[in-house]
Amino acid sequence: MKLAIIFGGASYEHEISIVSAITLKNVLPKENPLFIFLDSKNEFYLIQSKNMVASNFRDGIYKKERQLHLINDGFEFKGLFLKELFSDLRVINLIHGGQGEDGVIVSLLEFYKIKTISPSREASALSYNKSLTKIFANSLDVKTLPYEVLNIRGDRKLKNIVFPLIVKPLSLGSSIGVSVVEKESEFDYALDTAFEYEDNLIIEPFIKDVKEFNLAGTFTDKLVLSNIEEPKKEKILDFKTKYLDFSRDETVVKADISKELEKELSENFRKIYEPLFVGSLIRCDFFVIDDEVYLNEINSIPGSMANYLFPNFAEVVKNIYIPKGRDVSITYQYIDKIQKAK
Amino acid sequence: MKLAIIFGGASYEHEISIVSAITLKNVLPKENPLFIFLDSKNEFYLIQSKNMVASNFRDGIYKKERQLHLINDGFEFKGLFLKELFSDLRVINLIHGGQGEDGVIVSLLEFYKIKTISPSREASALSYNKSLTKIFANSLDVKTLPYEVLNIRGDRKLKNIVFPLIVKPLSLGSSIGVSVVEKESEFDYALDTAFEYEDNLIIEPFIKDVKEFNLAGTFTDKLVLSNIEEPKKEKILDFKTKYLDFSRDETVVKADISKELEKELSENFRKIYEPLFVGSLIRCDFFVIDDEVYLNEINSIPGSMANYLFPNFAEVVKNIYIPKGRDVSITYQYIDKIQKAK
Repeated sequence: MKLAIIFGGASYEHEISIVSAITLKNVLPKENPLFIFLDSKNEFYLIQSKNMVASNFRDGIYKKERQLHLINDGFEFKGLFLKELFSDLRVINLIHGGQGEDGVIVSLLEFYKIKTISPSREASALSYNKSLTKIFANSLDVKTLPYEVLNIRGDRKLKNIVFPLIVKPLSLGSSIGVSVVEKESEFDYALDTAFEYEDNLIIEPFIKDVKEFNLAGTFTDKLVLSNIEEPKKEKILDFKTKYLDFSRDETVVKADISKELEKELSENFRKIYEPLFVGSLIRCDFFVIDDEVYLNEINSIPGSMANYLFPNFAEVVKNIYIPKGRDVSITYQYIDKIQKAK
Repeated sequence: MKLAIIFGGASYEHEISIVSAITLKNVLPKENPLFIFLDSKNEFYLIQSKNMVASNFRDGIYKKERQLHLINDGFEFKGLFLKELFSDLRVINLIHGGQGEDGVIVSLLEFYKIKTISPSREASALSYNKSLTKIFANSLDVKTLPYEVLNIRGDRKLKNIVFPLIVKPLSLGSSIGVSVVEKESEFDYALDTAFEYEDNLIIEPFIKDVKEFNLAGTFTDKLVLSNIEEPKKEKILDFKTKYLDFSRDETVVKADISKELEKELSENFRKIYEPLFVGSLIRCDFFVIDDEVYLNEINSIPGSMANYLFPNFAEVVKNIYIPKGRDVSITYQYIDKIQKAK
């Protein structure tokens, strides 16, 4: 069984996916994974490890690599004189944002029966849409901040939320289209910016200097949790800062928090993760307000798989459990019966 | 723009999908759609209209038809001497059950930029999993019956629900694996039967002689609702009865109900449908208990598209609105900046 990483994709986060994959190359040297690049024309390329350099993608040099085609159980390279099959793979879905996090890629790979470390379609639907995330979290007794959704064709009036507030596209990640709005006069501009990316926005109160904690985890033969990090404070990360954030590869210092809070954060993570996210490695970002834990966001495909949160990342990745689908056998017994009865 | 129907699929409902497609052939003679069969080996075949006969699928005769391959914007036939492209399609996703209703097929077609009349991935996730359906419905103030979920590896104790009850696999349709359980002694057998199909079951109270109403709808340039039907009473439809149900093609008699109830049912349908299900034609099955409306199930791909509920089905199908995805342009501006800064 060979580890492979699929990255790129038709997403606003295409470029940070490339950075993320390069980072994984560096933190998983022993695994020596296959790197499969999905370009914006829906073509797959097998990138040699030595060519995993950002500029090769920008300059289109990747097109000199071997093009792959999806087939049942894997990818195929069809050269002029030879055919090569890449099967028995464990593919990490590292396509951040659209296509990767919305469930398209995992469906595609599932259709071709390729084992994938990825949020499932169901998990993607619930984590990609931030209002569904809240409905889902609340149904599990995980608290979230209040919110309102605005549509590009609806009016721009808020019912309950007051300034300062934060405007986010309903489903993009990596701070794309996100603005903190201090006062009414800035509101329209923030909405226009976010509507550039998506027809639906989510508005939440912005809480200054809120305590924030990040925690990642996955399931091997049990739930495995990462260190908890208290990320550095910035109003919001701009895209460039986030971009650099995706290339992190040094293990973080654990947040200095009480045992109780650690337990509380872990328990909230567990409620979200099990069973829906089994098969994936996710990061949950929490707020702590008046000693209460609130889920801020689920990063269903965190930058470079949040490797920097795990003291033993390579070991964890190797053991992520991927649920098996059931094989459906088609017998035509009903058509048979009806034909015979005729 | 050519209408096409994709049917079959690796699903327990493979055979009823065939019946469903044959029915649509009969009710859409003027549209003369392309029939694209997906077999259990993931191969696509373009079935000539005259060969749309159930036994041709059972007997493997469909393999003599032209095999199609997915490409960007459509399907391709590659013969020995000629290549034919089928593009500019409006594809009806008529794969009932797994693959069709779980979001795999719509993702596959979306990846290849093919316009599809289908529940979206998000809508599929919420309608395919019956406990998510309830969470979603309740968040919209649509009532549902109470329920409990049992897992194959968990214990078989119920917390609150008492006999008689109904046991269903969490996500299959068409009554597969469903049992009504009158008393405790029948419970284990019902669970074993349902666990044959799925690892998670949903248990609900069974209400004898409950009033049931079915209502389908879609969005063209506005919400279009079908006639409301009060389906014939049977404890539960067995698979064969359901199978025959999928070949219905005569417009139903409207249920004889008050204006208020009609309004109430329509309003509940609208809450569920908009905006999540835009792009699909769905049927909602409601219960009425003590004058209150409860959502029983969402059929996100109803048998033969519930054609029999619409007085003007062909007209409706022609006009179903399919939301456009946004094209993401990839500019490599960030990689560019970083390279230049080096």
